[in-house]
Amino acid sequence: MMNNSGALVVFSGGQDSTTCLWWAKSRFSDVRALTFSYGQKHLKEIECARSIAAKAEVGIDVMDVPLIGSLGKNSLTDNTVRMDTEQRGTEPPNTFVPGRNLFFLSIAAVRARELGINHIVTGVSQTDFSGYPDCRDTFIKSLNVTLNLAMDFQFVLHTPLMWLDKAETWELADSLGIFGLVRNETLTCYNGIPGDGCGHCPACRLRREGLEKYLESKRGTLLKP
Amino acid sequence: MMNNSGALVVFSGGQDSTTCLWWAKSRFSDVRALTFSYGQKHLKEIECARSIAAKAEVGIDVMDVPLIGSLGKNSLTDNTVRMDTEQRGTEPPNTFVPGRNLFFLSIAAVRARELGINHIVTGVSQTDFSGYPDCRDTFIKSLNVTLNLAMDFQFVLHTPLMWLDKAETWELADSLGIFGLVRNETLTCYNGIPGDGCGHCPACRLRREGLEKYLESKRGTLLKP
Repeated sequence: MMNNSGALVVFSGGQDSTTCLWWAKSRFSDVRALTFSYGQKHLKEIECARSIAAKAEVGIDVMDVPLIGSLGKNSLTDNTVRMDTEQRGTEPPNTFVPGRNLFFLSIAAVRARELGINHIVTGVSQTDFSGYPDCRDTFIKSLNVTLNLAMDFQFVLHTPLMWLDKAETWELADSLGIFGLVRNETLTCYNGIPGDGCGHCPACRLRREGLEKYLESKRGTLLKP
Repeated sequence: MMNNSGALVVFSGGQDSTTCLWWAKSRFSDVRALTFSYGQKHLKEIECARSIAAKAEVGIDVMDVPLIGSLGKNSLTDNTVRMDTEQRGTEPPNTFVPGRNLFFLSIAAVRARELGINHIVTGVSQTDFSGYPDCRDTFIKSLNVTLNLAMDFQFVLHTPLMWLDKAETWELADSLGIFGLVRNETLTCYNGIPGDGCGHCPACRLRREGLEKYLESKRGTLLKP
């Protein structure tokens, strides 16, 4: 039997998953958040996640999964690797943690099944996927089938941001009434600075460009007679 | 570019994965074994795995993944759960560790990619699947696609035992020249006793019935003029 009132949101405390948390709250009456601690350089992420979940009045579980950080050499969890933020040819950048979304969503599925929850929400987006193969729509759909077969359970993976660019994600946050919260309290920056961040890492650049584009289009709309 | 000489075998030291290890050795020149420690009641499994890998002259990695044992309540990793070995209606038995093969094979894939290995071998079998959904052929095939999409890498999952029953698995071991080794040194028993085991748990029963069937058919063949 399907439980259509509950949803589990894979939640990092960043712009995207915070927007997804409120998106889920607008559609499901019983929302929970699941956050992973996997050896990120910036444990501040976990703090942010807890504080935002509290504001959303949503229960949050923080799971310790050091395994994921230890699996492949990457610059997000390994201080000996210098962050190489540009894509090189067809290779993903070295901020790619191999299989990260595969493990996050698989663990979320086991947890959801335990809680009797069928709906799982994740903030992945193919539009701004920066060369990470595990942000693509085909991967998510294939994984959805695999999870259902693995556990003989009807999971439904929701990806509200899949085809939105960053400007449209700002627009969605605004329409959900959390523009200010996302702007000031979420942590997206690779250098661990909340809100507008360091301003020069690729995550900050992407976020700021989207913000400027959204504010510009909003101004345009407001100016119309 | 494909590496067709290397294979990584998901290896527990039991009858099935030991047979797979030699199967892999007969087909690939560069075989490695990967064993998981995830809070099994019987750490003797790991000892067995190491000793058999040494005899196979195959390198072995033992990875500690307590996460998997902690995910769902099950009787294999939780001493407070009494082992309920029969399938109840359409529910899998409580020896089912939710998502176990999903995590084992996903971790194996990340590891294989790091080692530049495309071929992964697992001993899952749909024939004797005892109600575990993650032993079915459709699950494995779906997972193969998911893994390839997740990491943009060409993995090939091999399941030499998928359609064999236990008697046929004994026959395969015999044809690979390891009948005695499998019979005396592998550990399949839920109660942690190597070789013929405790004799009364479901794993021992399945193993013995297969052995008797195989020996009988072999005797029949030998008696023919």
